[in-house]
Amino acid sequence: MQEKGSISIHSENIFPIIKKFLYSDHEVFLRELVSNAVDATQKIKSLGTLGEYDGDLGDLSIEIKIDKKKKTLHVIDKGIGMTGEEIKKYINQIAFSGATEFVEKYKEKGEGSGIIGHFGLGFYSAFMVADKVEIKSLSREKDATPAHWVCDGSTEFELTDGDKKERGSEIILHINKDSEEFLEEHRVNEILTKYCKFLPVPIIFGEEEETIKEGEGDDAKEKKITKPKVINNTTPLWTKAPADLSDEEYKNFYKELYPFSEEPLFWIHLNVDYPFNLTGILYFPKIKNDFDIQKNKIQLYSRQVFITDEVKDVVPEFLMLMHGVIDSPDIPLNVSRSYLQSDSNVKKINNHITKKVADKLAELYKNDRKSFEEKWESIGLFVKYGMMSDDKFYDKAKKFCLLKSIEQDKYFTLDEYKESIAGNQTDKDGNVNILYATNPDKQDAYITSAQKKGYDVVILDSPIDSHFINQLEQKLEKTNMKRVDADIVDKLIDKDEKAESVLSDDEKEKLKKVFEEAINNSSMTVAVEALSPDELPVSLTMPEFMRRMKDMQQTGGGMPFMGGMPDQYNLTINANHKMASKILKAGSEEEQKNIAKQNYDLALLSQNMLNGKDLTNFISRSVEMMEK
Amino acid sequence: MQEKGSISIHSENIFPIIKKFLYSDHEVFLRELVSNAVDATQKIKSLGTLGEYDGDLGDLSIEIKIDKKKKTLHVIDKGIGMTGEEIKKYINQIAFSGATEFVEKYKEKGEGSGIIGHFGLGFYSAFMVADKVEIKSLSREKDATPAHWVCDGSTEFELTDGDKKERGSEIILHINKDSEEFLEEHRVNEILTKYCKFLPVPIIFGEEEETIKEGEGDDAKEKKITKPKVINNTTPLWTKAPADLSDEEYKNFYKELYPFSEEPLFWIHLNVDYPFNLTGILYFPKIKNDFDIQKNKIQLYSRQVFITDEVKDVVPEFLMLMHGVIDSPDIPLNVSRSYLQSDSNVKKINNHITKKVADKLAELYKNDRKSFEEKWESIGLFVKYGMMSDDKFYDKAKKFCLLKSIEQDKYFTLDEYKESIAGNQTDKDGNVNILYATNPDKQDAYITSAQKKGYDVVILDSPIDSHFINQLEQKLEKTNMKRVDADIVDKLIDKDEKAESVLSDDEKEKLKKVFEEAINNSSMTVAVEALSPDELPVSLTMPEFMRRMKDMQQTGGGMPFMGGMPDQYNLTINANHKMASKILKAGSEEEQKNIAKQNYDLALLSQNMLNGKDLTNFISRSVEMMEK
Repeated sequence: MQEKGSISIHSENIFPIIKKFLYSDHEVFLRELVSNAVDATQKIKSLGTLGEYDGDLGDLSIEIKIDKKKKTLHVIDKGIGMTGEEIKKYINQIAFSGATEFVEKYKEKGEGSGIIGHFGLGFYSAFMVADKVEIKSLSREKDATPAHWVCDGSTEFELTDGDKKERGSEIILHINKDSEEFLEEHRVNEILTKYCKFLPVPIIFGEEEETIKEGEGDDAKEKKITKPKVINNTTPLWTKAPADLSDEEYKNFYKELYPFSEEPLFWIHLNVDYPFNLTGILYFPKIKNDFDIQKNKIQLYSRQVFITDEVKDVVPEFLMLMHGVIDSPDIPLNVSRSYLQSDSNVKKINNHITKKVADKLAELYKNDRKSFEEKWESIGLFVKYGMMSDDKFYDKAKKFCLLKSIEQDKYFTLDEYKESIAGNQTDKDGNVNILYATNPDKQDAYITSAQKKGYDVVILDSPIDSHFINQLEQKLEKTNMKRVDADIVDKLIDKDEKAESVLSDDEKEKLKKVFEEAINNSSMTVAVEALSPDELPVSLTMPEFMRRMKDMQQTGGGMPFMGGMPDQYNLTINANHKMASKILKAGSEEEQKNIAKQNYDLALLSQNMLNGKDLTNFISRSVEMMEK
Repeated sequence: MQEKGSISIHSENIFPIIKKFLYSDHEVFLRELVSNAVDATQKIKSLGTLGEYDGDLGDLSIEIKIDKKKKTLHVIDKGIGMTGEEIKKYINQIAFSGATEFVEKYKEKGEGSGIIGHFGLGFYSAFMVADKVEIKSLSREKDATPAHWVCDGSTEFELTDGDKKERGSEIILHINKDSEEFLEEHRVNEILTKYCKFLPVPIIFGEEEETIKEGEGDDAKEKKITKPKVINNTTPLWTKAPADLSDEEYKNFYKELYPFSEEPLFWIHLNVDYPFNLTGILYFPKIKNDFDIQKNKIQLYSRQVFITDEVKDVVPEFLMLMHGVIDSPDIPLNVSRSYLQSDSNVKKINNHITKKVADKLAELYKNDRKSFEEKWESIGLFVKYGMMSDDKFYDKAKKFCLLKSIEQDKYFTLDEYKESIAGNQTDKDGNVNILYATNPDKQDAYITSAQKKGYDVVILDSPIDSHFINQLEQKLEKTNMKRVDADIVDKLIDKDEKAESVLSDDEKEKLKKVFEEAINNSSMTVAVEALSPDELPVSLTMPEFMRRMKDMQQTGGGMPFMGGMPDQYNLTINANHKMASKILKAGSEEEQKNIAKQNYDLALLSQNMLNGKDLTNFISRSVEMMEK
């Protein structure tokens, strides 16, 4: 045996698969049919431009109609139309891409782009929702005979002479029982709004009322007329030249996209021809605290046809918080995510968008620092995310990444800030120490202490900051990042200074014992230190390293063995505070412990660690002490 | 013109689409090929059983091999094999489902079930990863000529006589450049483990070492031999009869599925023949607090072939926390979510699983209440979720839904609990008041007060409880749910009792003024009430209704207008506490305010509402007061 041949595809078997599995969302049938209609309309325009069609182009609107009684949906265009022969060629042979041929033929003449072009498979998506589909068509050719094609969803078709009088095609769907939703105006309107809102040819669906004036001057009368309702904007903003557009127009387009949103902070108009084709407008929204609500707001289009709003993998992840529109015929659709990630066009698009955003931010910072600072609360989060996930972005962003001083209520760049604190916050090893608070409300006692000592504290309170702090420490030279409660204020920045102690070593040892017994908690390491008498009698701190490990663990990083590690705190008793002497002089051991306990509870309170029964007891004890 | 005809599918055009878009994950090619091999193997077994094949069945293992040098991957079965004619019929004509024909032919004889059966399309998924594909096959027919089929990914094939000596088929994939990952052992092993772990025919991939004993007694020697490694378990637990299985076996199977998990709490063996076909084992895991980690743990199989672990819409949402396996040929695969939701089989499966889980829980409760109570922390969350989302489940679950009393450290059913508290916690209108705490640690002061009055408090601290409380109140008759800090303890359950006041109305008015001026906060409504002298001097409460609205808003329910509503608290001054007289008698207005402020701060503390500067000031003030 020796045989060569062609693999054949059994239409009866593959047809149901195409009908059912080609698209997971049935509603896209309308996108496909309207896209085909737009395609046919663009083609007649091209022929007109090229002088290959000398008839009158006329009104080229596409019309969608529903007939509830007959249970039909109609898509009617005034495009090139098809002869019976063309129907046989383009429709009866599935996956024969008519558009490809057309583009091939005309591309030398510089035309043919702007055609959606996947005639063939898309048409058959009609059978996802229809039992029977008809095509009535009249070709642009002179004296063409109208054609009428009918198919009942099997692979059998019937083609006869038709009666269509106007140039173009009408697709008639006899909607099946499971799909009657597509006979409802509101549903069809919804789908058209979703997919066809920015198509380049007017799409008519339904009618609207308009008030017009008739007559002139005092005789003028108002009159209401109904007229066809165009549902799309044929020249959406991103297709226009940035130089021709005003801020107002950008803001209005944003409102059109997201009707209930606040005004955007700024926007970037993308316009790339080479090495890939991409247009679009990305907006930076005002960010509220909640992450998730904001994602999946970028809409992806292909030649003005809406494709999806799931742009993950097309847009760099840290830019997913942006809103807006991207239109590119070069993004592969409908393929697996892993494929998308490795696609070289997608990578280039990613890099391009990242660069554009960094440039825009740099420009905003340079041209109007005040307004940039005002926006920092919204953009800081994603600048930091970008700095952590993309080294190129880091290098650009380090010049405009800001830190906010709590006391001064003022923003600094990284360089500015280091310079401003270097005088008072450099330790004995020559490292500059940046002090930060993650929750000024909860860390107020520590911030107050630091400020009393002339130190400045910045606020780093977003969820990303626990990671960003590590990044900063790695990137900035000779710089430590310390949370303001990482140690007692006198030791926070080690300048090798020692204070005199009012208490003798013996008294200190005694005091230490009183506290250890009063507290009786092995996770507290008690030490008595000579601090300023203005400082609190008792302070509770957790070393920076240990706390960071814990934080990272909570946000999903860090080493697993840290999980079992118990919290370990440092409890520092101020030997120079009046309270120290008061405890030592107290009448009974009981009273000593009582005062120690109350002061310990106050230290716990300053770390928000006094809870449950301990808090209830503290409250009662405080009431009792006051009653005396 | 009048013409009838058949829609034809252009192979050259549709072939690339099948190859690229049929599956979004390229790795499934191996699942498809191995499934086909299993299919062919089952068929030869069936023929043997029916007496239609009288040759020796022999070893029926399927082998997967990689040849890195030649860049080929081989799938070899010893099934029915194919003649040249059969290849032409089944392979050259895409989507001709050979299995369908086979099942049709043999179904009267009660055989043919258990065959995977989508020969045809699946085979072509090979071209997703291979440039060239070969089939070498020897049919089961007597004196059959071996066949050799080659196709280079175009639609052209070549069929010649082959040289295969053993019955069965070998599929040889010449892996393409982009897919070389599939020539790596670890990758192939990973895919086989994912999809083929429980196939009914032994699958061999690679070799393993085994130590055997040679000789006897003292002469015995240990010797290492290599042997083919079977990677699957051909009779997974869910295919066996529950009566034949021990707890140990269920637990071991769980470990096989989830190697690093803790032991499951219990399990349910599903076995349905009619009106749909479903087997499986669902395990209830120990639930840690984190929701998301636990989801998507149920694996969906179709005749022992792994399909997906995204079972959303197949399993009721509130059961998504369960783990385990579901095997059903009746769940439509690969279709859109909206289709799945409306599929009647899926609905029936949903209902069946819900009923089974409810029955199992009822049985556990009935047979061993103690152990049920021990598991309540894990299962309570999802029982409550089920009670809220499914009325039928509610009706079954209300008999075993438990409430835990904090003081008694004991569980009650809803009925038991209502009965136990009815005596002391029924108000003047005859409603039973269930008091609850959402955070015993933070609400300790209030719990202590309630307990002093002889009230019982239950804990309802899971994120779902804020919704579940509403559900309970709607369902339970004459029952109120009140958080323990919804009012001062004397008013929490209104029994129409009035305490005598130590202070005159005039003094009360004066005291109120002192506090209002000391606090100066419009969100605090100050009232002076005659409470027990043992109660705190100042209490802060928020009415149940208002707090619930706020809670619901935070978890995403509630009315939008509540967003702008300011918090409103009730501050109750205890006229009968010594502190009240102390304030009125204080020397100066300044001192009056100072004591009032300190007591107000303690009330704020009991609600965890003292923060920031206010807390820092409270701490300093407390230290100063102590120093005196």
